[in-house]
Amino acid sequence: MYPDSLARLIDDFKKLPGVGEKTAERMAFAVLALDDEKVIRFSNDLNDIKQKIKKCKICGSLTDNDLCFVCADKNRNEKVLCIVEDTKDVFLFEKTGNFDGRYHVLGALISPIDGIGPEDLPLKEIIERVEKEKIEEIIVAVKGTVEGETTALYIKKILEGTPAKVTRIASGIPVGADMDYIDALTLESAFRNRKEL
Amino acid sequence: MYPDSLARLIDDFKKLPGVGEKTAERMAFAVLALDDEKVIRFSNDLNDIKQKIKKCKICGSLTDNDLCFVCADKNRNEKVLCIVEDTKDVFLFEKTGNFDGRYHVLGALISPIDGIGPEDLPLKEIIERVEKEKIEEIIVAVKGTVEGETTALYIKKILEGTPAKVTRIASGIPVGADMDYIDALTLESAFRNRKEL
Repeated sequence: MYPDSLARLIDDFKKLPGVGEKTAERMAFAVLALDDEKVIRFSNDLNDIKQKIKKCKICGSLTDNDLCFVCADKNRNEKVLCIVEDTKDVFLFEKTGNFDGRYHVLGALISPIDGIGPEDLPLKEIIERVEKEKIEEIIVAVKGTVEGETTALYIKKILEGTPAKVTRIASGIPVGADMDYIDALTLESAFRNRKEL
Repeated sequence: MYPDSLARLIDDFKKLPGVGEKTAERMAFAVLALDDEKVIRFSNDLNDIKQKIKKCKICGSLTDNDLCFVCADKNRNEKVLCIVEDTKDVFLFEKTGNFDGRYHVLGALISPIDGIGPEDLPLKEIIERVEKEKIEEIIVAVKGTVEGETTALYIKKILEGTPAKVTRIASGIPVGADMDYIDALTLESAFRNRKEL
């Protein structure tokens, strides 16, 4: 029904998360309504992204250069290292503006069911950084799933014997969330991790 | 914060309807996770779309060729012409699969407030088609706003004296919709247009 070129673009949009048939159609028609130069820019940016984006040589985060903006920044606290699962988590934490240390991206969590073992994670690099950069605290900031907890405990184990303290971000009820919508496991964890006021 | 190439892609996605900062970020990261070939294809499709998509020489709908798939189809009922506002409306009606006539795309509705007068609409072309194609019914299938009604009445006026009957699609309550969510104007219209069972 759609002209070929339009049908192809609709298919492309459908590869994006949360985009179904209807949304993809709406987006493709919106592209038709954009200025030519904007569409060409969009096309060029897509063409560039895979070639230009590299992994930071130190932490594995995303960058256009050799080092990411965090690792290139001399004013960051070099004594604290935040371990995250995915490159996008680095940007999530940076948006909070509260953390002045540096990061290391795991790229995956230990998950025997998916065939991902400790050897698939950059644990050697983390141990090297702990020793070379004299890191005093490792904050394991991965999600609170079985895989996340397993990975956190494994990192704690391999860093035993180094001077680095290993911590885990708190799990509990989200700020501002209605209690009705919190699941039982989260509530239990929030109870267990209660703090004296 | 984001590498330049990623920030640019996020900006591109934000130009699409219903895509805010967060969704655009999610989409850009999803692009990074796609295979290279899919991203290149996406880029090429965007690059092609504006050059390849043209207006059908007869009805103004979208096509890769001279004629759209409806106008090129010799099996359509040539006696009925459906007038729509936008090219995407053609595809909406085609999806219902109920209409076997042909279309004409207005591209806009009469709207003095936006400076759009009858002279901005392809009314001459419609009159020509009515005469040349011996059209017996014109179905004005534009939305039920002031602009839509004005345009429908104007089309009826200019076709007076031709043998073509001008009809308007019904307005009323959407099928399956809960009465609670229907606005007063729609309810009033549904009442006024009631049919004997």
